[in-house]
Amino acid sequence: MDTPNNINFNPHVSVDCVILGFDGESLQVLLSRQSDEAPQEEYHSLKLPGRLLYATEDIDDAARDIINQLTGTDNHYVRQFRAFGSINRTSNPKDVLWLENVVKLKIDRIVTIAYISLIRINNRTHKRFAGHDVGWYKIAELPQLAFDHNTIINETLKEVYNISSRQPKVLFEMLPQKFTALQLRRLHEQISGKELDVRNFSKLVLSKPYIVPTDEKEVGVSHRAARYYKFQSSKTK
Amino acid sequence: MDTPNNINFNPHVSVDCVILGFDGESLQVLLSRQSDEAPQEEYHSLKLPGRLLYATEDIDDAARDIINQLTGTDNHYVRQFRAFGSINRTSNPKDVLWLENVVKLKIDRIVTIAYISLIRINNRTHKRFAGHDVGWYKIAELPQLAFDHNTIINETLKEVYNISSRQPKVLFEMLPQKFTALQLRRLHEQISGKELDVRNFSKLVLSKPYIVPTDEKEVGVSHRAARYYKFQSSKTK
Repeated sequence: MDTPNNINFNPHVSVDCVILGFDGESLQVLLSRQSDEAPQEEYHSLKLPGRLLYATEDIDDAARDIINQLTGTDNHYVRQFRAFGSINRTSNPKDVLWLENVVKLKIDRIVTIAYISLIRINNRTHKRFAGHDVGWYKIAELPQLAFDHNTIINETLKEVYNISSRQPKVLFEMLPQKFTALQLRRLHEQISGKELDVRNFSKLVLSKPYIVPTDEKEVGVSHRAARYYKFQSSKTK
Repeated sequence: MDTPNNINFNPHVSVDCVILGFDGESLQVLLSRQSDEAPQEEYHSLKLPGRLLYATEDIDDAARDIINQLTGTDNHYVRQFRAFGSINRTSNPKDVLWLENVVKLKIDRIVTIAYISLIRINNRTHKRFAGHDVGWYKIAELPQLAFDHNTIINETLKEVYNISSRQPKVLFEMLPQKFTALQLRRLHEQISGKELDVRNFSKLVLSKPYIVPTDEKEVGVSHRAARYYKFQSSKTK
């Protein structure tokens, strides 16, 4: 094995989690504020929840640990997605400043392993992670995030779209137990970035054995009450 | 961000390439000998071609560089697969010894990013990589490899099977320009690890618009000469 000088460098390795949820209207992603004190101009204010890998843990365990801390449980859909290791991903001066001030380390390079988790949005999501505020942000209205986190999120959406094409059940990880056809269509549209024809989509929903109509309908709505459906995992085969 | 002591460690990051080919009979993987000199008992003798990441390159570029060096071209199917980062992957004493002797570094932990490449086996594949012999080895008869490289190869096969289910054209990256139905079936069987029914498979082949029969047949064979087919990419949609 050749050993040029430039391999005598060790990049840091981090794990970043793209935790996606859906509130019935909007596809959302869980983001952490970079700092509660610094003015927003100084750092990019928002980033994906993540941290550097510890010496004592596997990368999958680091992802599970982050997701556990944020959601309080470890029974979510979690999947390793992709490593992002461009030289330029840690070169923005705002991000360099943040790393040096907050992580207290001089960091030249971070290779990050991105994980995808799909969850139901509820009140149990923790509001703090690693000392910073955490909240849900609409995918359709994301500002400029730290590092390459916008890219990671965009690539994740494509991946979730691909996964859901072959494993439709993953989308139901994000939907409430009972959902309307409109909610399911909105979720599909926001994952794919494409508007879907209402009539065709309704036909599609009705044709899937694992999407089962219930006897319940919406209550207290001003429009015509829509039927609730539920997902039946045993019928996906 | 919390900063426990154990994040003040930097793992090494490597790139390992699972380069798969098919010679008409067997699915094979390109492996590098760990050392030309040391006795085989001392090290695990074979490993995936790969190396530590250089400070000056993106991870995708490292993979392309390795595959270029081995195959002489950069127009192969290449895809990042998965990061392998278990604590135990560099703990086998044989592998530790190899790292210290050959890489000349004290290495506690390596997170490796595995890439998949699918190529046609031909004589242009380079026989040396990073100072060591390189050769094709049958997937069905692999010995114990260094690190977790057997696991990486097994996981890669599952991934290629999944990819080919939704993008059948990837398998044709490994087949010769003209191939028989038998060759295509063998490749399918070795990727999936399942034996396929000859009759059903032939029907399947004939039903795919992108698998086009040619007028040519095998020559100089003792059995009944089989027809050659070719793959027509424009008919995959």
